[in-house]
Amino acid sequence: MAQSRQLHLGAFMRPVSIHTGAWRYPGASPDANFNLAHLKHFARTLEAAKFDAFFMADHLAVLNMPVEALKRSHTVTSFEPFTLLSALAGATERIGLIATCSTTFEAPFNLARRFASLDHISGGRAGWNIVTTSNPDAALNFGLEEQIEHDARYVRAREFYDVVTGLWDSFADDAFVRDVESGIFFDPARMHVLDHKGPHFAVRGPLNIARPVQGWPVIVQAGASEAGRQLAAETAEMVFSAPGRIEDARAFYADVKGRMETLGRARDHLKILPGAFVVVGDTVEEARAIRARLDSLVHYESAIASLSIMLGHDASGFDPDGPLPDIPQTNASQSGRARVLALARRENLTVRQLAQRFGGYGGLSFVGTAATIADAMEEWLVTEASDGFNVMFPYLPGGLEDFCAKVVPELQRRGLFRTEYEGTTLREHLGLPRPANRFFPA
Amino acid sequence: MAQSRQLHLGAFMRPVSIHTGAWRYPGASPDANFNLAHLKHFARTLEAAKFDAFFMADHLAVLNMPVEALKRSHTVTSFEPFTLLSALAGATERIGLIATCSTTFEAPFNLARRFASLDHISGGRAGWNIVTTSNPDAALNFGLEEQIEHDARYVRAREFYDVVTGLWDSFADDAFVRDVESGIFFDPARMHVLDHKGPHFAVRGPLNIARPVQGWPVIVQAGASEAGRQLAAETAEMVFSAPGRIEDARAFYADVKGRMETLGRARDHLKILPGAFVVVGDTVEEARAIRARLDSLVHYESAIASLSIMLGHDASGFDPDGPLPDIPQTNASQSGRARVLALARRENLTVRQLAQRFGGYGGLSFVGTAATIADAMEEWLVTEASDGFNVMFPYLPGGLEDFCAKVVPELQRRGLFRTEYEGTTLREHLGLPRPANRFFPA
Repeated sequence: MAQSRQLHLGAFMRPVSIHTGAWRYPGASPDANFNLAHLKHFARTLEAAKFDAFFMADHLAVLNMPVEALKRSHTVTSFEPFTLLSALAGATERIGLIATCSTTFEAPFNLARRFASLDHISGGRAGWNIVTTSNPDAALNFGLEEQIEHDARYVRAREFYDVVTGLWDSFADDAFVRDVESGIFFDPARMHVLDHKGPHFAVRGPLNIARPVQGWPVIVQAGASEAGRQLAAETAEMVFSAPGRIEDARAFYADVKGRMETLGRARDHLKILPGAFVVVGDTVEEARAIRARLDSLVHYESAIASLSIMLGHDASGFDPDGPLPDIPQTNASQSGRARVLALARRENLTVRQLAQRFGGYGGLSFVGTAATIADAMEEWLVTEASDGFNVMFPYLPGGLEDFCAKVVPELQRRGLFRTEYEGTTLREHLGLPRPANRFFPA
Repeated sequence: MAQSRQLHLGAFMRPVSIHTGAWRYPGASPDANFNLAHLKHFARTLEAAKFDAFFMADHLAVLNMPVEALKRSHTVTSFEPFTLLSALAGATERIGLIATCSTTFEAPFNLARRFASLDHISGGRAGWNIVTTSNPDAALNFGLEEQIEHDARYVRAREFYDVVTGLWDSFADDAFVRDVESGIFFDPARMHVLDHKGPHFAVRGPLNIARPVQGWPVIVQAGASEAGRQLAAETAEMVFSAPGRIEDARAFYADVKGRMETLGRARDHLKILPGAFVVVGDTVEEARAIRARLDSLVHYESAIASLSIMLGHDASGFDPDGPLPDIPQTNASQSGRARVLALARRENLTVRQLAQRFGGYGGLSFVGTAATIADAMEEWLVTEASDGFNVMFPYLPGGLEDFCAKVVPELQRRGLFRTEYEGTTLREHLGLPRPANRFFPA
């Protein structure tokens, strides 16, 4: 029976996988961080399965954990997102290409230009995952001794967004007339000079590139804090959420979509896609065994470091076999901390158990057969806990290939997922409108 | 008769051509600024002709001329270099890919990372054209009310270079051991934390990407001032020079290579490639007619604006039919100004004539047949006026195709240019050594 609503699927990617033990898994591609051939294969396989988007995670620091954990980590180095996604644009034709990019360490002019260029190069497939970068180690790579405080980052992010979208609207879609006879290349009346002067940025414009194919690349966000939710309701078109339980996800979904309605935005113009770590087997037992084997490949040093990052607090001195002690409020990402505390409460886990869970992958996971995974995804969709998922694969390429070969056909059979792309742009895949130019309304 | 020294050829590119009238020339591709298919064709044609590099020019502002000229200009908008060159990396296999990137408006960490990523994606074909960005209109897009003063930009550029090359050396070439058995992904003893603290930048590092394939991308520079020449002698591996006459070029060549020897660098480890606008015809008369037709497509409004940019001074109030009046020293690029003054003196040109020359393309040009152009290039090579050229094509694709079909075979017949690539990296094409890692000497 065909569903009226269908799932949207992004693939949330690190070259070797999100899971920190993945590079040691049999058949994995441990050299994928700098081997484009692997990345092309991943993107093409996802495109053949009709995924909405290839979504590139990003980090801006190597030294974000103690050296004993660091030396075991495949996650701190990789291609840079813009160069990678432009290369993948040439290796694919339809799949969306989402780059994570920080509002804290980039100039709005440069960022606006790069996303517009990626959108032109890919024929309208770019998306921008707006992050404010909570990692204090990243700040040290950009001349900042201390990370900017949490809420101040969001105020800055909102102004950054206003500048970037304003720059994308520098030219009307019909500005470039290229009239060889008269010698008029573009119509200056169809060009807008932004002349932004705000608390954080002064940017004249116009941007030195035509308006993106999609008008604006798709706006993606992940913050779960009060400031993050409000920014998402105001500006986001995809939210990459990180709920623990389906009940939490439903509450988050209702909250963000409710905020949109209050603001006069259509609920449909933002898709909420929680991150979901998916392990598929031919039996539930096989899937559980895969995950157990994967987790066993994570060293405790890495595990405890990951837990420290999630908490924004050094956990290495905690009793591994005791419960999580009280820790002071910090300036780190509040969504990460909330997830740890919720999981610790819900499953009554020791520090070691928490560390091993987060050291591998500690967020929402579906571990089972194609049928049980499709059941779960359907429940999330139908009960308005989500509009789909940003899928994370346990190891690459095997875990990705298994998802595409087993879960996707089951979702398609149920009418829950497309069997062909209907449009050519990421906006079209996600069912999002093309934004009007604020300076040149149609 | 084979020469022991051979020419190196870069293609200095804007998507529609450097010449401002080119978009109106019959057969031109006026939409190439945002049409990747054209750019792929250009790059593949240059690769088939065995060019050393595709060299992407860049600008960071639209409003760098009066609107009457601006509306006729195809030069102020185009793809962004990193996204474009990554896309072209996938469309080519051997040709070098040089991106222009400013030390004034980028964070060194981001720039180092992007070039390293492009070098990995292209298999060692990246080059960085270091510019300090003299255009005052660019500053307004980055929150600066006034452009930084000329010599201060070079001091900053030198520190920027030290940080970027230091970040590229973050990991020894053998740092990533990926030992699945022991679980060691990389050897922390083979990782260097830069911890740079200088007058302009504080950057901890390490860079979150492996050392580039070439060790460092090839370093390119263009400054002709005292500060620019010294920075080139200290750091550059290719110089994009802009001489007027061959005598000037010989003096520049001797000066820069002499400075290198004083510094203990081998003369051979920097290639001086002047920009050369090349118009080829089957007869000299045909070539001259092509240029005359092209120049006739440049409007006077654009021409006078270009002259103003070259001078760093508004020339629109000058008497078009009088000589160039005295103008005060400014903070603009000193090499551009010197070129105008030299040409005005040498050819005794009026303001209108100067404007029309610079409005089209006012620098060094070779206009003739394949044989006369090869004669000139041979003289420049043999008399140590240059090590080759950064060729600019009058219009695209025709002017580029003509150069590759007519001039390149003539150069090859004379033994002045390669008939096959011998190496795979840009360094190998240019005969440059792979730099040792300063923190992990071999």
